[in-house]
Amino acid sequence: MIITKEQVLQALGNVEEPDLKKDLVTLNMIQDIHIEGLNVSFSVILTTPACPLKALIENACRNAISHFISKEAVVSVNMTSRVTTQKNTGVPGVKNIIAVASGKGGVGKSTVAANLALGLAKSGAKVGLIDADIYGPSVPIMFGLEGARPQASVVDGKTRIEPIEKYGIKLLSIGFFTDPNQPVPWRGPMVSTAVKQLFNDADWGELDYLVIDLPPGTGDIHITITQTFPVTGAVIVTTPQNVALADAKKGVGMFMMPAINVPILGVVENMSYFTPAELPDNKYYIFGKGGGQKLASQLDVPFLGEIPLVKSISDSGDAGIPTILQEDGVMTKAFTDMAQRVAQQVAISNAKALGNGAIATV
Amino acid sequence: MIITKEQVLQALGNVEEPDLKKDLVTLNMIQDIHIEGLNVSFSVILTTPACPLKALIENACRNAISHFISKEAVVSVNMTSRVTTQKNTGVPGVKNIIAVASGKGGVGKSTVAANLALGLAKSGAKVGLIDADIYGPSVPIMFGLEGARPQASVVDGKTRIEPIEKYGIKLLSIGFFTDPNQPVPWRGPMVSTAVKQLFNDADWGELDYLVIDLPPGTGDIHITITQTFPVTGAVIVTTPQNVALADAKKGVGMFMMPAINVPILGVVENMSYFTPAELPDNKYYIFGKGGGQKLASQLDVPFLGEIPLVKSISDSGDAGIPTILQEDGVMTKAFTDMAQRVAQQVAISNAKALGNGAIATV
Ligand SMILES: Nc1ncnc2c1ncn2[C@@H]1O[C@H](COP(=O)(O)OP(=O)(O)OP(=O)(O)O)[C@@H](O)[C@H]1O
Ligand SMILES: Nc1ncnc2c1ncn2[C@@H]1O[C@H](COP(=O)(O)OP(=O)(O)OP(=O)(O)O)[C@@H](O)[C@H]1O
Ligand SMILES: [Mg+2]
Ligand SMILES: [Mg+2]
Repeated sequence: MIITKEQVLQALGNVEEPDLKKDLVTLNMIQDIHIEGLNVSFSVILTTPACPLKALIENACRNAISHFISKEAVVSVNMTSRVTTQKNTGVPGVKNIIAVASGKGGVGKSTVAANLALGLAKSGAKVGLIDADIYGPSVPIMFGLEGARPQASVVDGKTRIEPIEKYGIKLLSIGFFTDPNQPVPWRGPMVSTAVKQLFNDADWGELDYLVIDLPPGTGDIHITITQTFPVTGAVIVTTPQNVALADAKKGVGMFMMPAINVPILGVVENMSYFTPAELPDNKYYIFGKGGGQKLASQLDVPFLGEIPLVKSISDSGDAGIPTILQEDGVMTKAFTDMAQRVAQQVAISNAKALGNGAIATV
Repeated sequence: MIITKEQVLQALGNVEEPDLKKDLVTLNMIQDIHIEGLNVSFSVILTTPACPLKALIENACRNAISHFISKEAVVSVNMTSRVTTQKNTGVPGVKNIIAVASGKGGVGKSTVAANLALGLAKSGAKVGLIDADIYGPSVPIMFGLEGARPQASVVDGKTRIEPIEKYGIKLLSIGFFTDPNQPVPWRGPMVSTAVKQLFNDADWGELDYLVIDLPPGTGDIHITITQTFPVTGAVIVTTPQNVALADAKKGVGMFMMPAINVPILGVVENMSYFTPAELPDNKYYIFGKGGGQKLASQLDVPFLGEIPLVKSISDSGDAGIPTILQEDGVMTKAFTDMAQRVAQQVAISNAKALGNGAIATV
């Protein structure tokens, strides 16, 4: 029998991308079809390397060829990706800006931002992380970069800051420019200027995702960033108790304001419960139960996962090696799953913004 | 035998105030001496009703009379207090302003501030509490005052805001003036104006202590308050991990800056450990161990106590009834002890500022 390219396209036209609710061919996700006798090979261009549906889609493609063309076909699928983008992010070369936020302090924004950035990078994406917390920068300690000073060069008469590379991602923190033992008693306008420089004066190169670790509150830094750079979406971090949920709602309210208008990618619940090693079946809901899920359903946005209260997360923050890089299988998986769900929501949001058509391949 | 006033003064001249390292007579703390036969009565004017040394000092007085005058004397001691002050706080009628701060978010500043204010009031002091966290006010939820709106009246052509009274203290929060579901995307200058009004336009009346719950960071609100009102001292709250200690140090650094110069009253460690009900002897140091004590000794300031991670503290914050008011004996005692240590440090700080002389009796 002779297999044709048309047959392959027709067969794969039956495979639906579950998130985008269209078939792979319409979505322009099938490329490089090669046929040699019974050997069929093609590439599936996902919208993110961190796609949680990767295995599912690959399987569906194999099944479609086998079912609609021939059980004898030897199928080789090259699962690859091209991260989508919907608009100019204001930072040249950067496809998507993801803000990690919460009105409330200390809920784990920095922990989520660091592990999210590393989780996306682990899947193969090009990732940057900006620590925009002027008053309490966390990246220097969390990445073991205390005392690090980024290189600055002058290109065309303009100062260019080189982000620091660690664990495969590019990093900038206001903490790299200030004395860790001294407070930064800056008022708003100075803060705005400093934070814009982290975006504009840095040499970010090509990035699929630039993750922003925001400070608590809804102040100058938030207003400056969201009004200066078109943020792709915001991940809201909360702990389960009401006082945290109340602040998280305010954080969400800020992103939803007409002048700001940043889509909410979903809610992460952190510090959900504690399990002592001696009582592995017990979950102590110290801060209450189910608040994150409640918030997500109130806001009608996806729930991106719950992260338990675990000593290794706190320890790894102090030790300079984020949890997702460590051997603790359970926590690594929790953060990897979360990163995939975030990437998925970015892809969905981009697809929506681009209308019903095929996926943009910028 | 006949007991004279001189004998009583001489006897009590042997009793030292342990903190101030001077005897009670020199410190002008003995008043209203009355003698009728063997009945001796007098008042001891402490520097705070929350004095943790109250029982100790009373005992020492009784012993001094018995030892230096006569075992037969029938002593009646009236332990009372007149809270000291060292300078004009900028708010008429307010003797001392205590700022509760930490560079870090979510470490329990609001929880400590609320329980500190109530602990001071429980001892008999007149107490106010200002929630200066514009972006994430906690007082409305923590005191069960969601939706409360303070009365405003016009006196001599000037608007006067009436603080809300609850559980025996006077309260103002920026949250009483804003929509709890809406963010407050204000830039610095507007924030400064709003926060000053909580001090200047409110009718605080006579207060021994005005406790200020500060937001995280070292930004506009901190600068405005410390530069506008002579804050008596700052209580630093931290959790045990390094990232929190690093931020707490920055918070301390801000208070120590020459232009600000607010004394540090001490360090409270919060969320120190967790003890499951099923394993009452186990302490799980989820966020690390001993960080607060380490910080206090690095800064050479008193350690004011550790507060464990307890579900009832989180629950009571959400329920609107602070922990110190609840039946949980252990936590009530922990917060009461902490409030007494803070009051003690304020008294010591005031005595130092007033020089070696007797205690001011404003
Ligand atoms: N799930 C967890 N289990 C144990 N410790 C955690 C967990 N999540 C965060 N932590 C620790 O709690 C502290 C606060 O977390 P983090 O700094 O990420 O919060 P944040 O929201 O960024 O705080 P801030 O408002 O100050 O920026 C850190 O020491 C962190 O290591
Ligand atoms: N010792 C404790 N045990 C259990 N829960 C606690 C404890 N201390 C504080 N909490 C809870 O942790 C959360 C954070 O505490 P709190 O709001 O007092 O912190 P904060 O430093 O004022 O935060 P922010 O930086 O947002 O102002 C609250 O829900 C509070 O009820
Ligand atoms: Mg942070
Ligand atoms: Mg607070």
